[in-house]
Amino acid sequence: MHDAATLYLTQGSGNNVKPMMVCQHLGIECNRKYINVLAGETKQPEFLSINPLGVVPFLVLADGQRLGESNAIAWYLAENSPLIPKTAIGRAQAIRWMNFEQTSLEPNISPVRFVTFIAPELATDNHDMIPVWQDRGTKGLQILNDHLQAHNFMVEETYSVADIAVYGYTHLAREGGFDLDSFNAITDWIDRVESQPGYAPISELLNGADYTIDNLAA
Amino acid sequence: MHDAATLYLTQGSGNNVKPMMVCQHLGIECNRKYINVLAGETKQPEFLSINPLGVVPFLVLADGQRLGESNAIAWYLAENSPLIPKTAIGRAQAIRWMNFEQTSLEPNISPVRFVTFIAPELATDNHDMIPVWQDRGTKGLQILNDHLQAHNFMVEETYSVADIAVYGYTHLAREGGFDLDSFNAITDWIDRVESQPGYAPISELLNGADYTIDNLAA
Repeated sequence: MHDAATLYLTQGSGNNVKPMMVCQHLGIECNRKYINVLAGETKQPEFLSINPLGVVPFLVLADGQRLGESNAIAWYLAENSPLIPKTAIGRAQAIRWMNFEQTSLEPNISPVRFVTFIAPELATDNHDMIPVWQDRGTKGLQILNDHLQAHNFMVEETYSVADIAVYGYTHLAREGGFDLDSFNAITDWIDRVESQPGYAPISELLNGADYTIDNLAA
Repeated sequence: MHDAATLYLTQGSGNNVKPMMVCQHLGIECNRKYINVLAGETKQPEFLSINPLGVVPFLVLADGQRLGESNAIAWYLAENSPLIPKTAIGRAQAIRWMNFEQTSLEPNISPVRFVTFIAPELATDNHDMIPVWQDRGTKGLQILNDHLQAHNFMVEETYSVADIAVYGYTHLAREGGFDLDSFNAITDWIDRVESQPGYAPISELLNGADYTIDNLAA
């Protein structure tokens, strides 16, 4: 059902990893279009005509319906698969952890990684925020580590879309200066996620994607 | 199925409104326990033994399972009801808007409302953040208004858990100094939400709840 959908993605982003991890785990062959965020392509008219909010990842279905937000796209692609928990409380726990990821992890790990690792030339402007992001992000990682000390996966001891969502930026945390060595439950869980069928490292996720800002409608 | 669950709530919070709106719309009779956040009760041992993260809303099921995060609790209580969209893309859009609410609305409307309206004595410390929160929150409200100019409800033209999640802090935005008068699509939608069966104003949501920090286990 998803083979005719188009997924707009960029390289190196923990949010963009998530829908691709679902596709690769389930063998879904989405069309992939590579958008270069650092070159400003998400803000160019060609892309804004597809997603007026100017962000990726973004999914356009075969019938033209559009869906934003990484965790929502991952959830959609995972529907009717074992990646969605089977019980009502399991689905709610998955939504709980996806929410936690977007409020406690991503808003801290992503910006500090961006200004210190991806584009350090921007660090000057945001220098005073770096310790704030690192402190808040570490508190989030502590909550995650506490959970994973008692559980193999985020929800109901089964690999799910919640693991994929939380993995997105957690596995990149070292690039934001976070010390994961004291969070053994997290690093053990990262190993379990990376042992799942279809897993590929973030550097390989866009292999084979079209690069086509000039003919996005194609 | 939810009648034996216990919902821990506080007064006046846009997040705490959400699960109660689901219960009242669907006629679910959760046990409700009132926790006084401003008096510090979420950080007292009696409550920390129930939710170590020390936040409300929080749900404890009859079998002891525990669930945090307002939107996850609302989703759980809404399962198997018309408040959950019927299609896969509809459910994903609901998750998309719930995510939007927790990243673009709540983190801006909630703190500025807190320091200027709920507890202005704290505004001194956070004074420089007030214009930042108001600017970011206004951008979120603009995105919401744009969506509601073309839609009666958040997802598939039907009242759903996504409306309840987004309504939580949006209907309190004026208390944070946000001018909703220029967002007619939002104010019209607020009227539609408040016309739904079972709707009660935030000031009435805890009428009849137990107030029992001293005997929370009861």
